[in-house]
Order: sequence, then structure tokens, then C-alpha cells
Amino acid sequence: MAIEKKIPYKIYLEENEIPTTWYNVRADMKNKPAPLLNPGTHQPMTAQELGAVFCEELVAQELDNENRFIPIPQDIQDFYKMYRPSPLVRAYCLEEKLQTPAKIYYKFEGNNTSGSHKLNSAIAQAYYAKKQGLKGVTTETGAGQWGTALSMACSYFGLDCKVFMVKVSYEQKPFRREVMRTYGASVTPSPSETTQVGRKILAEHPGTTGSLGCAISEAVEVAVGNPGYRYVLGSVLNQVLLHQSVIGLETKAALDKYGVTPDIIIGCAGGGSNLGGLISPFMGEKLRGEKNYRIIAVEPASCPSLTRGVYAYDFCDTGMVCPLAKMYTLGSDFIPAPNHAGGLRYHGMSPVLSQLYDDGMMEAVSVPQTRVFEAAEMFARVEGILPAPESSHAIRVAIDEAMKCKETGEEKTLVFGLTGTGYFDMVAYEKFHEGKMDDYVPTDEELAQYRARLPQVD
Amino acid sequence: MAIEKKIPYKIYLEENEIPTTWYNVRADMKNKPAPLLNPGTHQPMTAQELGAVFCEELVAQELDNENRFIPIPQDIQDFYKMYRPSPLVRAYCLEEKLQTPAKIYYKFEGNNTSGSHKLNSAIAQAYYAKKQGLKGVTTETGAGQWGTALSMACSYFGLDCKVFMVKVSYEQKPFRREVMRTYGASVTPSPSETTQVGRKILAEHPGTTGSLGCAISEAVEVAVGNPGYRYVLGSVLNQVLLHQSVIGLETKAALDKYGVTPDIIIGCAGGGSNLGGLISPFMGEKLRGEKNYRIIAVEPASCPSLTRGVYAYDFCDTGMVCPLAKMYTLGSDFIPAPNHAGGLRYHGMSPVLSQLYDDGMMEAVSVPQTRVFEAAEMFARVEGILPAPESSHAIRVAIDEAMKCKETGEEKTLVFGLTGTGYFDMVAYEKFHEGKMDDYVPTDEELAQYRARLPQVD
Repeated sequence: MAIEKKIPYKIYLEENEIPTTWYNVRADMKNKPAPLLNPGTHQPMTAQELGAVFCEELVAQELDNENRFIPIPQDIQDFYKMYRPSPLVRAYCLEEKLQTPAKIYYKFEGNNTSGSHKLNSAIAQAYYAKKQGLKGVTTETGAGQWGTALSMACSYFGLDCKVFMVKVSYEQKPFRREVMRTYGASVTPSPSETTQVGRKILAEHPGTTGSLGCAISEAVEVAVGNPGYRYVLGSVLNQVLLHQSVIGLETKAALDKYGVTPDIIIGCAGGGSNLGGLISPFMGEKLRGEKNYRIIAVEPASCPSLTRGVYAYDFCDTGMVCPLAKMYTLGSDFIPAPNHAGGLRYHGMSPVLSQLYDDGMMEAVSVPQTRVFEAAEMFARVEGILPAPESSHAIRVAIDEAMKCKETGEEKTLVFGLTGTGYFDMVAYEKFHEGKMDDYVPTDEELAQYRARLPQVD
Repeated sequence: MAIEKKIPYKIYLEENEIPTTWYNVRADMKNKPAPLLNPGTHQPMTAQELGAVFCEELVAQELDNENRFIPIPQDIQDFYKMYRPSPLVRAYCLEEKLQTPAKIYYKFEGNNTSGSHKLNSAIAQAYYAKKQGLKGVTTETGAGQWGTALSMACSYFGLDCKVFMVKVSYEQKPFRREVMRTYGASVTPSPSETTQVGRKILAEHPGTTGSLGCAISEAVEVAVGNPGYRYVLGSVLNQVLLHQSVIGLETKAALDKYGVTPDIIIGCAGGGSNLGGLISPFMGEKLRGEKNYRIIAVEPASCPSLTRGVYAYDFCDTGMVCPLAKMYTLGSDFIPAPNHAGGLRYHGMSPVLSQLYDDGMMEAVSVPQTRVFEAAEMFARVEGILPAPESSHAIRVAIDEAMKCKETGEEKTLVFGLTGTGYFDMVAYEKFHEGKMDDYVPTDEELAQYRARLPQVD
């Protein structure tokens, strides 16, 4: 089956077509995402309370459920020009390999040194920190993509950057750590002896290799305790989805340029930043009743917050120092099984996406990791890009949907988010090649135990 | 000093502007590169002799000093569309950092999974092997960029790919090895017990960690001894420079589009594939007397073939199974000091570039590695791309030339080749960060020893 190639392999927008405003999907949501709550009083967090942790303008963005468009400051637009627009790729080679009538596109966010879409929000958060006259920011990182992105952004604006890196990643991924050092960041393995919460966790769980929730607690403690510092986060928050809307806006502009309308939009979902960004303008049309897309969130079967979690208020971190967020969650002390290698390890899901999912505006599926790596390897071989394990969740479902089209003969148009590259994830690929990867999935009993520890919020 | 930004940060050609022919600079050379010689008879290698080692059509390209343009087969053009055109970037951020009146451009070849320009020739060589009906190809790899590129190309055409990887790299760069495995290649540490020449080298030098020259010998032996296999090489050869001309042709087309004429063109030089490709159309104009560019080859001070070698016939490999090539060389058993971390480790230089250098058509400079990594880190911080150590040699000299412009006030236009990314080179960056890098340079006495062992060719 030969494929007609009227559309380029890679659609690049012009530099002057990069969006100049972010799109705030909350403005179009009838049911707004639930507010963050003070963990002590269970009352909605005020701007003032949030301002102790986050930068002022980011707090405003976090709380803004009304303004549909937020201008992108010129300095951020300039930085975007260093690596954006990112290409929208027509996956001709994958289509040929699958012999599917489906038309497959992917938005590739990996062509920058952080290796993922995370840079889109990192540069925004660093900008507002600089604008506020801060000395620096603190954050956590797991696999290291967010930490790298933030290091790059802070280096650009001359800000200090303190990264708490989940200890197991710190030890297993020395190269990620070294990239962050190249950009001048300080990287501390978490849990550490440098914070109260770190010492407490170490005392309670000697020998722990850490978790994202624990690293968040340490980063927040340091931000709150050091004048001139604030905490920044790479996913989950409303503000992050806002910044990541640049992915979806570019995707839509590129498709519109060629008169292409997608039938299905697919993204991997950990905290939700990539998926939320990719789908935002399409979801906007859907919310306004203008179009009807199928939107699919893909998560690991070993960390299934949407498909097997509950929609409830929960802690965002292990140390319980952060506000409570209403989200699909597995419980704040849930940690995926040690053999899980595909990223997307966060216990909860963005409040915006949680609300949209609860409202039936999008679907969710979970996939076992060996099938994810099978898709990753096939994709690498035919499309020439070695994908991040995270991104490969979306590849898996895109392939599955394309194969359904092959059965039915439907010429559906699929778009998925290829969030990044897997160059720092070769340990996971090695596990896969050597047959050392299993598909452990938490039992209902295990999940019930975590769920039983959710905070009681009226 | 504010910079006017009429030219985009990144100039992307359209897909239909990707070259459809390669440019053969030899057609415009008055003094042709010296022919390869049979190591036994010292007579020029015939097409038939070369055909035992290389694919037929590649032999024809190797020997073709006359045809100025060679059509790029459609299958290769299609593959190029997966990752080409590559961007020509205006380094506004670097210019601002340096506060230089110089205008700096770089052609970035790192946006593909092999991480470098090597893919441009790998896909061509795999294509001709496939066309000839071969089962597979053999090759050597040092840092691993070439091996990765060839693995990707072979996977695309369904060819077997046997890579001999210099043992020290095989052990220190398990992730590179794993990328090659992802693309289905077999990777053997060299020297190995699987070849005669490997066993001989191991017997003579027990515990050796290998060299490129040694891995070449093993790969050639396996190719010659296995029906349906040929040997392919990622640099040095005329055919490789021909394929890499796509870099220069795109660069020139992008500059022409904006009416920009470079004053100085700078590239790193190991075997010469990147430099030879980048400069080719510009060199053509210079050879034809149409334009006069300064062209600068940059090599490591620890492996200075152009600046401190001799122009003579030498072996291309340690095992002395390959043809003799006339080139600037340090001697075929020269190996850079163990502390050398910047790549570009080959003892000789492309015969084409050697002849051009000998004819005074280009300059060469050598740079010590700590200054290279200083440039790499500065570049990473301001331009947002973590460069390969190899590429950083060119960055170093581009910065030096830009600083000269700052002194003189000249608004020169510089173009350099950014051949790839350094994601698999973080051990080298770590050495640099921890102050464990020295600038050892071979003494005249050492070089004289290697030179004394050059073959005697009349």
C-alpha cells in the first residue's frame, strides 16, 4: 500500500506563527477544577497563602478560571524561539509499517536539551521568579527531565536553582545530574539530611530510595524557609497546563494550515502537563460544542490514577506540607512497583484533567509496560526517534487505534504527543531487551489500603 | 548592545528544498586527492580490488573525481525527510553573551537519534548495500555516533549490522551500545577473540582497551570473510565527504535565501566528514575562483593530524589490512593520551581535505581540551543545546574569532558546524566539572617515534 504524500513529513510553523498568548482551558469549563485547600483548615487557599510558596504572577495564573488568553511575555517568546516551533510530524513510515489507512501525526517536543516539553513551563516559571526579583527557585525531579528543563531556564535568567532529585534516580542517572550541573544547578538526592522533612522520612524509613512526593516536600520546605526563594513544579498545577497549551496551539495551527481535522488525540499522562497542553485548544472547541474529538489519556498500568484511582481531595506530597488538591488519586503514599520503568509515577492527576475526565470529556486507558516498550522500539526503528518511555505510552495507544482502523478500513486521523527522547533512559531499554521487565499491576487490595489513608475532607 | 533580529533564530528550508544531488568537490579540485594504494603492491587500488571490501556503487563514488553532481536516490531522499532539513541557527544569544559585532550562524546536525551528522552517510551506504542485495555490513565505532547512525540506517533497510566498538567505549558507554541494540545491531567490543587480527592484537597487547584503527581491522576482516557482507566507514573516505555535502548545500541554500555571505567557515575535524561536508559548496566556489572564504579546520591539540602531522601515505588501520591513503597523519599506531575526552581521535585526515590543506585552500588550528569544554558549557547555557565534545572544538574557535571581531569592531559573518549533541558524553563533562581534565599534548619526540614507523611508499 503506497501512501500519497501531499503533506510534508514535518510541518514547521514559521517563527512568527509561534503563539503569543497561552490558552486557559478553565475559561471554557462549565465545571471549574476544584480549588486547592489549606491542609490545616480545609479552606480554599488564598492568593496570599499561595504566595508564600509560589511566585506572585504564577499564583494569579493558578487561580485564574476566567481569562481565556494570557499574553506570553516577550522574554519567554524569545526563549521559545530557541527551540520552538516544534515539528508536527506525519508518521508516514509508521503508517507504512502498520499498513494502516489511519493518518498518524505526532507533535515532537524532544528537540531541546531538556529532552522534553518540560522546558515550555520551566522558562515561564523562571521568568516570573526573575521578574519578582527572587534569588532562586527550588524543585523536585524524578527521571530528571523537569530538573534539566528548570536548570536551563534558571541559567538563562541567572537564577539559582536547587533541585531535589529522587535518590534512586540520582544514583541510577548520574548523567542527568551532570547535565543539570552543566547548567549550574545544585542537585541533592532526596530524601536528604538537609531538611526537617527529609530527616523525618529517613528516620521513619531508613534506606528509602525516595519518591517524588517526598522530594516535593523537601523542595517546598527549602523554598518557604529561605528568603528570596519560591517553589516551582513541573506538572499537575493549573499554571503548568496553561504554559503547556503552547503545544496544543502549535499543533492546531499546523493542522489548520493543511486543513486537517483530527478524530482522536492521544497523550501520555503522569501529572498531566503534556496531555493538558496538547489537548487544550481541542478541548476548548469540544467544551464550547464546536467540535467533537475523542481524547485519550494513557497511563501506566502500574500507576493508574485515572483508571483505578478515586476523585477526591488528597495531599500533593508525602510530607503533607503542600495544599490539598482534588484529583484522581491513588493516595499520596502510593509508589509504583520497583520494576516499573516507564516514568509517569505520580500518584495523582492534574485537577483540570481530573474534572474533565469526571465530566466525561475524555477517556483514559492504562497499558502494561512491556507493550509500551514494544511500541517504543518499533517506533524508534521506523520513525528514527528513540522515544522517552513516558511518550511511548501514547505511541502504544496510537498504534492500537491505527490497527483498529486497519480492521475496519476507517481512515481516521490520529494525533499524539511525543513528549521527549529516551537518551537518558537506556537502563529501562536494557531491561526490556534482556527480558527483565515484568508487568506487575497493583491489586485491588493494595490500592484499597492506600485509599483508606486519604484525608477526610467534607 | 541590542541585536536587530531580521533573520529568524532558526532558518528551516522547506522539504522540497532539500538537495536532490550531492556535490562532489573533487570535480573542482585542480590537484585531485591521491589515490588509495594496495598495501602490498603500492599500486592504485582498482575498482575490482575495492569491491571486495566496499559496495559497488560506493566504490564508483570513491573513485569519481570528475562528476560534479551525483543524484541522491529517492529512497535516501525520503529518509532524509525524517530528520532533514536541519536548522541553520542564528546564534543571537551567543552574540549577546559575547557582546560581539560578529554575526554567528551554526548548522545543527544533532536533531536525530544518532545525535550527529553521521546519519547522512550511513543511510546512503546502507542503501547501496541493500541495492546490491547484500545481507549486511560491518563497521567500527569509537564514541558510538557512527555505530548508532549505521544501526538506524540498517534497521530502516532490513540489513544486518555488525559493529566493532572500541573496548574502552563499549565499557564506558553502555547506553550507546543499548541504543544500537534497540536498532537491532550486534555490538562486539574490540579487540575481540572473534577475528584473527583481534586475537593477534590481544596476544601482542594483553589488556589493551582498543583503538579505532584496531576496530577497523576487525570489521574489514569480517566483511571480507563473510559472503554477502561489505565494510562501511563513517569518515575519511571520499564517498563519505560526498554524502555529507548535503550539510553544506543546505547551509548555503539557507544563507542564500537571506542574502548572507559568510566570511569564515569553521568545522571540527577528526576524519574530516563533517568539515568536508559543511565546506564543500563554499570550497567549490573558492576553487573556481568565484568567492574567497576563510575556512578553518579545528582539531584537538592532543590529536593534531593537520597541524603537526605529515602529508604522506599511511595505513588507515592498525592491522594494516586496509588500503594506504595519502593524508595528513600522525602514524597509524598513534593513540591520543588516555585523558583525552573530546573525540576526534583518528590518526589521519580525509585525503580530500589533506590535499586542500596542502594546497593552502584552508587553515587548521588545534585547541586544548579544557578550553573546548569551557566553550561547550558557555554555549549550552546561552544557546540551550548541550553540544558534543567534537562539535565544541568548532564552537571554541567560533567564539575566539567573534572575540577578535569585538576587538576590531568588524561585523564578520561566521558559520560553524554543530555536528551533534553530547547526551552520551556526560562522563567527559563530569571530568571537566570536577577539574580532572588536563591538557596533555604529545611532545615532538613522541610524534617523531610514530612518524618513523610510516610505510615507505615511493
